[in-house]
Amino acid sequence: MLPQHIAHVFPDTTDTNPAGHLTIGRCDAVELVEEYGTPLYVLDEATLRSKCRQFAGAFASRYANAQAVYASKAYINPALARIFAEEGLGLDVVSGGELAVAMAGEVPLERVYFHGNNKTPAELEEAVAAGIGRVVVDSFHELDLLERICAETGKTQDILVRVSPGIDPHTHAYTTTGIIDSKFGFSIQTGDAEKAVTQAIAAPHLNLQGLHFHLGSPIFELEPYQAATDLVLRFAAGMREQGLYLQEFSPGGGFAIAYTRNDQPPSPDDYAEAIVSTLAATCEELGMEQPSLVIEPGRSIIGPAGVALYRIGAIKEIPGVRTYVSVDGGMGDNIRPALYQASYEVLSANRPAAEPDATVTIAGKYCESGDVLASDILLPTPAAGDVIAIPAAGAYCPSMASNYNLNPRPPIVLVNDGQSRLIRRRESYADMMLCDL
Amino acid sequence: MLPQHIAHVFPDTTDTNPAGHLTIGRCDAVELVEEYGTPLYVLDEATLRSKCRQFAGAFASRYANAQAVYASKAYINPALARIFAEEGLGLDVVSGGELAVAMAGEVPLERVYFHGNNKTPAELEEAVAAGIGRVVVDSFHELDLLERICAETGKTQDILVRVSPGIDPHTHAYTTTGIIDSKFGFSIQTGDAEKAVTQAIAAPHLNLQGLHFHLGSPIFELEPYQAATDLVLRFAAGMREQGLYLQEFSPGGGFAIAYTRNDQPPSPDDYAEAIVSTLAATCEELGMEQPSLVIEPGRSIIGPAGVALYRIGAIKEIPGVRTYVSVDGGMGDNIRPALYQASYEVLSANRPAAEPDATVTIAGKYCESGDVLASDILLPTPAAGDVIAIPAAGAYCPSMASNYNLNPRPPIVLVNDGQSRLIRRRESYADMMLCDL
Repeated sequence: MLPQHIAHVFPDTTDTNPAGHLTIGRCDAVELVEEYGTPLYVLDEATLRSKCRQFAGAFASRYANAQAVYASKAYINPALARIFAEEGLGLDVVSGGELAVAMAGEVPLERVYFHGNNKTPAELEEAVAAGIGRVVVDSFHELDLLERICAETGKTQDILVRVSPGIDPHTHAYTTTGIIDSKFGFSIQTGDAEKAVTQAIAAPHLNLQGLHFHLGSPIFELEPYQAATDLVLRFAAGMREQGLYLQEFSPGGGFAIAYTRNDQPPSPDDYAEAIVSTLAATCEELGMEQPSLVIEPGRSIIGPAGVALYRIGAIKEIPGVRTYVSVDGGMGDNIRPALYQASYEVLSANRPAAEPDATVTIAGKYCESGDVLASDILLPTPAAGDVIAIPAAGAYCPSMASNYNLNPRPPIVLVNDGQSRLIRRRESYADMMLCDL
Repeated sequence: MLPQHIAHVFPDTTDTNPAGHLTIGRCDAVELVEEYGTPLYVLDEATLRSKCRQFAGAFASRYANAQAVYASKAYINPALARIFAEEGLGLDVVSGGELAVAMAGEVPLERVYFHGNNKTPAELEEAVAAGIGRVVVDSFHELDLLERICAETGKTQDILVRVSPGIDPHTHAYTTTGIIDSKFGFSIQTGDAEKAVTQAIAAPHLNLQGLHFHLGSPIFELEPYQAATDLVLRFAAGMREQGLYLQEFSPGGGFAIAYTRNDQPPSPDDYAEAIVSTLAATCEELGMEQPSLVIEPGRSIIGPAGVALYRIGAIKEIPGVRTYVSVDGGMGDNIRPALYQASYEVLSANRPAAEPDATVTIAGKYCESGDVLASDILLPTPAAGDVIAIPAAGAYCPSMASNYNLNPRPPIVLVNDGQSRLIRRRESYADMMLCDL
């Protein structure tokens, strides 16, 4: 049994075993690190699939035509793309690289959405050539560029237009995207959204399917989704005369997860109820046919499924100041504490039930003081060789990982029902020099 | 001719040519991006070698026995390691990966120093087996571990002990390392440094050569170096009775560079004069023989040699708010603005002499609002297709680069006297999936 107050931050299958070790997907965490080394990222397949079904189900049960599209930027690789495709999800990609992974994972391309504020000409050419489902157009530059690429190749591309509703979702400034001061989308307030929709309708090789917005991430409140949904639908209704027929509506993603014991994010049902009720009510009020609904969970699918495992090395007690417990990973595999001041829980993986009697700071092995994974947290008095687990590490950790200090990026292992399967191996020193000439 | 007020932020050889383009190492920046694509990191070999000579010369001209050791963490690859070795510099490495690059670059291993607060057992084994010059021991855990590894292999390892002098260099909290609340080194104040030196002297397979400290980076003041040098020498003198014979003394690195027009860092001569004068005076006062002196420039060597080139794509003018100019790189190749609130100069590479008449914000292509390279800077009214240059980009940019959003990491080209040579190629989509299973 996990300590109750942090159980909800770990994957669904997390438990302890008779050896007194942490288990995930019925795999012993200590045995996993013995087999695969540390640092190690563990993804629980049951949690991953269950989150896919929760999001898809929460919307599908309330709305006839809803599609969940996984936001790859949280983390993607070909093995995961296959799982998401099996679960019926589409994929939201933001680069040619993510599109290449979608193709490697054999995701049906009609369910792939291409986002981004500055897609390059080469990326748009690749996407059009591949037959991507939607390009979510973000700027006048892109409208022109995409029309030109399609005209040259004689193709017609389905698109959404990304609008910026000017609504603040109250999250970190770095990940707030739907306000007026943003590099993303066409602002409704300034009139750019109206101009963009008009231009998109007039473009001979672009087929405007609908509108997309994204407020930011992670969003713990429901009201911003409702306010923005209502606002964007009213904008769409106002554009009917200019020829906009809203077949598709995408309120983006940004759904929050619990990183620490105190986080109580809304459930998929809460998000679905808020969005669908507003969507239905406003459509009815405006006399609009209900568009198909596309939601884009990323962090909320893979975040809770992931646990990072590290081995403790040097411990430095500075009396009256702080005890630094250094592990063999850090800001190279998880930049979020340094970049976003993100907080994490930490649990002993080899003694999860032991009394947490020491206040310590978990530092990484990188050569800077900002390399701290968790400050002044409680652990059973640690010793070199202990293994610690950091939960809620599935999203924006491996995806943002670097080779800083030329530390290899960690492997990722998928666990399920007592079986473990490596879906990404650890980099070697030679891998890190692969591009060096 | 470059605009005078920012010329000192660019590599020494930067100029403009009859085509009106920026040139670095007599290579046309616009031609470079046509050949190698964008984003592109350009390193000027002349600046690189000149900085090596300036640092080595500034210390050698003042002190009989001085050795400059390049801090690889700023950025290293095998081609660069070869250049530093040619210039007579040693290498400071902080991981098995950096050691592997030192070996690939055929750096004489006796001039390689291994730093880090939590070297793993495997890394220490690799270092000892390779015959590394010095291990700079950072914790009691490492003292025990290294002694055990050496005993098992029957080797004796030369070491330094890293002490923490408790002096604040007044830089970013993330890169301040020499204060008492630090994961690095043995604190002199707490008595740990004394214990560590005593234990190191007693360790049969460790050969204590001297002491190292590092205050942080970048340090614009000279006084912290002097205060810490004096303090550490006095500590060493106090340890003579316990058997410490200080053969080697390393005040680390952290030497500052100019990132923006307003930055006026001390010169290599200023740093050398401050450190050497204190070192000589304190040694004389204490009746100590002068130890050999090891300094560790990293940023100050490679930072000024590097220029990042990007191509402009989408431009978004939000009236009364801000104009976002998006480029085809961003936080994936340069995390410093988001992570450290770092500021950069921006110059048009295809029109460097044009009047900078537009106030714009340079955003990247990454899907978050924190992805901004420079806020509210001046450029000649930009257009899609323009190329911009960000100087002082050689250090802590490629070294901290990620595949966030699955954007490939940029190539690095070395320029010299009209010739360009790729020393790292651009990653391909396949490269990014190399470790995926």
